[in-house]
Amino acid sequence: MRLLFKNARILRMVKDQPIFIGDVITTDARITYIGPSINHEGQFDRVIDVDGNVLMPGFKNAHTHSPMTFLRSLADDLPLHEWLYEAVFPSEAKLRPEDIYILSKVAFAEYLTSGITAGFDMYYYPEEGARASIDVGFRSVLLGTVTKFRESVLEMKKSFQIINNWHPLVSYRMGFHAEYTANEEILMELAKAAHELQTPIFTHISETQAEVQGCIQRHGMTPPQYFEKLGLFDYGGGGFHCVHLTHEDIALFKRRGLFAVTCPGSNTKLGSGIAPIQTMIDEGINLAIGTDGPASNNCLDMFKEMMLTFALQKTKLNSAVAVDPYTLLEMATVGGAKAMGLVDSDVLEVGKYADMTIIDLQQPNMQPINNIIKNIVYAGSKSNIKMTIIAGKILYENGLFNLGEPIADIYRKAQEVTNRIKGI
Amino acid sequence: MRLLFKNARILRMVKDQPIFIGDVITTDARITYIGPSINHEGQFDRVIDVDGNVLMPGFKNAHTHSPMTFLRSLADDLPLHEWLYEAVFPSEAKLRPEDIYILSKVAFAEYLTSGITAGFDMYYYPEEGARASIDVGFRSVLLGTVTKFRESVLEMKKSFQIINNWHPLVSYRMGFHAEYTANEEILMELAKAAHELQTPIFTHISETQAEVQGCIQRHGMTPPQYFEKLGLFDYGGGGFHCVHLTHEDIALFKRRGLFAVTCPGSNTKLGSGIAPIQTMIDEGINLAIGTDGPASNNCLDMFKEMMLTFALQKTKLNSAVAVDPYTLLEMATVGGAKAMGLVDSDVLEVGKYADMTIIDLQQPNMQPINNIIKNIVYAGSKSNIKMTIIAGKILYENGLFNLGEPIADIYRKAQEVTNRIKGI
Repeated sequence: MRLLFKNARILRMVKDQPIFIGDVITTDARITYIGPSINHEGQFDRVIDVDGNVLMPGFKNAHTHSPMTFLRSLADDLPLHEWLYEAVFPSEAKLRPEDIYILSKVAFAEYLTSGITAGFDMYYYPEEGARASIDVGFRSVLLGTVTKFRESVLEMKKSFQIINNWHPLVSYRMGFHAEYTANEEILMELAKAAHELQTPIFTHISETQAEVQGCIQRHGMTPPQYFEKLGLFDYGGGGFHCVHLTHEDIALFKRRGLFAVTCPGSNTKLGSGIAPIQTMIDEGINLAIGTDGPASNNCLDMFKEMMLTFALQKTKLNSAVAVDPYTLLEMATVGGAKAMGLVDSDVLEVGKYADMTIIDLQQPNMQPINNIIKNIVYAGSKSNIKMTIIAGKILYENGLFNLGEPIADIYRKAQEVTNRIKGI
Repeated sequence: MRLLFKNARILRMVKDQPIFIGDVITTDARITYIGPSINHEGQFDRVIDVDGNVLMPGFKNAHTHSPMTFLRSLADDLPLHEWLYEAVFPSEAKLRPEDIYILSKVAFAEYLTSGITAGFDMYYYPEEGARASIDVGFRSVLLGTVTKFRESVLEMKKSFQIINNWHPLVSYRMGFHAEYTANEEILMELAKAAHELQTPIFTHISETQAEVQGCIQRHGMTPPQYFEKLGLFDYGGGGFHCVHLTHEDIALFKRRGLFAVTCPGSNTKLGSGIAPIQTMIDEGINLAIGTDGPASNNCLDMFKEMMLTFALQKTKLNSAVAVDPYTLLEMATVGGAKAMGLVDSDVLEVGKYADMTIIDLQQPNMQPINNIIKNIVYAGSKSNIKMTIIAGKILYENGLFNLGEPIADIYRKAQEVTNRIKGI
C-alpha cells in the first residue's frame, strides 16, 4: 500500500523545524518520503490532497483504561476513593474477558476522532485489549496492572512474552495499579521481574493528597520515593497523574529519567488537584499527557487535555504565560511516544511509522490563520480532525470509521455488555 | 416553511420534564408542535429523522466579542492589562466599521458548530454586527460598550432605537466596558439613560483582582457596589466574568436579580482566577455562561465552557460533587436566554422560537448510553453537533453551513481584513 499525501502543511514535531508545505509518502506502515511537493515516481494506491491542512504525528494517549467505556456517565460526581471502591471495583468484578475486547473498541474509535494514534492502556485481560487493537488497527501499549486483589506478577510475565512477540501494533509493559492497592511482597516480586526483564515500571503516583499521606503513614515516605527504594525504577518507568509531587519527588523523576503523565481531565473531575506541570517543564522532566479512562473523564480527547493543562497552570500560577503551546504539543505527541517506548511513532521522518493525523484548518475555529501552533492548542477541537492514520492505514476520515466492523455494531455490542453489568 | 423533526430524544430544558422520544414541528420561526410521534396532518417542507439523537434548545453564549476573530492566536500569553493595552486596543484602532460585518461572520459560523444559537455581543459598531447577524440568520443581542475613549451614551441611545426596531433576530442592550475604562461622568449619564429607557445595564465586573483593588482605591468600594450606588442596576442587568466577587457583592446580585456570566475559558487563559460558581448556585444567583471573545479564549465552544466550569469548581473546592450537570446545562441554555432577554428562545415549547440543536449520540464519546445529561456535559464535544437551527432555519448540518454566502468566502475576507490590520 503506497499513499501520497500532497499539499500538506507538514508539522514534523522535530524541534526548531518549521511547518512547511510539502508531501509525505507512506509505503505500507512507514513513511518513505517527506519533503517538498515534486513529481513523484511510481504508482500510488491513493493520492490524498491535504489542501493546505496540517499533517502531523498523531497524539499519544499516555494513560488510559480503554475498557472502562461501560462506566461512562454511570459513576460520576464521587471522590476518588468512593468512586473506586463503591462504583468501579464492584462493576469491574462482573466483567468477562471477552467484554474487554468489545469495550476497548469504543474507546479506540473515540481516540481516532481526536487524532490519537496510540494508547498506553492499563487494564486487566491485556490479551483481549491487544486483540481488539490489532483487529481495529489501533496501536496499543498494554500495561500490566497487578493489585493485591487480582492479576499476579507471574501472569504479567506471561503477558509480557505473549504481547511483545505478537504484532507490530501492540507491545506490553509492566506496572501495578497503585501503592494503596498493592503490598510490599507484590512490589518486591515486581521489582525482581523488572530486573530480570530489564524493563521500566509504571503506576499511578500521587494522584490525591490522601494517597500520599497514606503512603507516608505506612512507609515513611512518598510513593515515588518508596517505589525507588524497592528498586522498581532501576530500569526507568514513570507515574500517572503526579498531582501531589514534592520537590524531592521531582528531583527523583529527573535523576531517574522517569516520565510524569498528567491527566488533568480526570484530576479536575475527581477534584484531585493540579499537577505542578510548569515546575516539571522548568526542571526538564519527561512529560506526557493522558486522558485517563472514560469512567473518570469522561471523554477521551487530547484537545481537552491540552487545554486543561495550560488552563490549570495559568490559573494555579496566576500567570497568562505559563506553559508554552509548542511544549504542550510536544508533550501530547513526542512525549507520549517516549513514555510508551514507541520510538518509531514520535515524529514525521523517513523510516518512522506513518502514525499521523490531519487537522482541518478550514473550519471557523481555525480562522483567520495567524499562528498554527496556537490555533491547534488554544482553539483546536476534535471536530478539526479530518483524518487519522495508523501504520499507513486510514482508520478515520471525515467522520467515518474504517475498523473492519461497522461502528454501529461496536456500539450495540458495548451497550449489551453495559446493560448486562448494570443488570438490565 | 414547515419542518418536522421526528424520532428525537427531546430535552426541553423545562425543570423536572424528562427526556422523551417524540416529534417537534416548526412553522416558520416558531415551534408549533411538541409531543409524541403521531401521524401529523398537512405538508412539510422537510422531514428530518432525528434518529434517536437529542433535540434541545440551542446554547446561549452570554458574553462574547465576535468581531475579535482577527486577533485569534495573535495576542496570546499576556496578562489582562498588557493584553488589552498593548495588543488589543492598538489593533482595534485600525478596524473599520465594515470589518465588523466580516469578522463577526466567522464567529457566528463557529457558534453554530457548537450548537450556540444566540450571542450577547459586546463590541463597537453594533449596527454592523446586527447586519451580519441578520444576513447570516444568527440571533444576536448587541451590547453597547461605552468607554472614555470611544462610543458615547448618545450613540448607544441611537443604536438602542435602531437595533431594537430592526429585525426579530437582533436586539440591543446598553452597557459599558468596565469601571477602569469609564469615568464617573459617563457612568452617571449611562445610569440616566437606563432610567429613561427602563433598561438593564451590563458590564465586565471583577474580572481580575487588580480591577477590584483599583476600584476600591478610586471609589472606596468594589465594582458592583460602585455601579449599584450610581443607580446603574435600578432596572437590573449584570456582569461578565464575576471572578473576584465578595459575599456582599453576591448578596447585591441576589437582591437586584442581576446576572453573573461566567467565562472560564478566558479567565483561565488570562490567569485571572476561578469564579465562585458553586457559591452563586447555592445562593440562587441568575447564572449564564459566555465564551468571551476569540482573542482571549481562543475558541468559541460551549462544551469547553461547561467543562471548565465544573472542572474549576471541583478543583477549587476539592470536591467531585461540585456543580450538578443539569444545573450547568441550564446555565448554558435557559440561563443565558434570561440574561439576554430572549424570553422566546429559552426552552422547547409551543410558541417559542425554534432555536435548537441536535446532539449526535451515535459517536463513540456518547457510547454506551447510560445518562444523556451527563454524556452531554461530561463527554460532549462540538463534534456531536449534528444540526443547529435558528428561528426555524437550518443553518448548520453535518459540518456544512447555510449562511447565504460560501464559508470559504467568509474565511478569505476575514483573512484579508486581518492581514491589513497586521500590515502584511
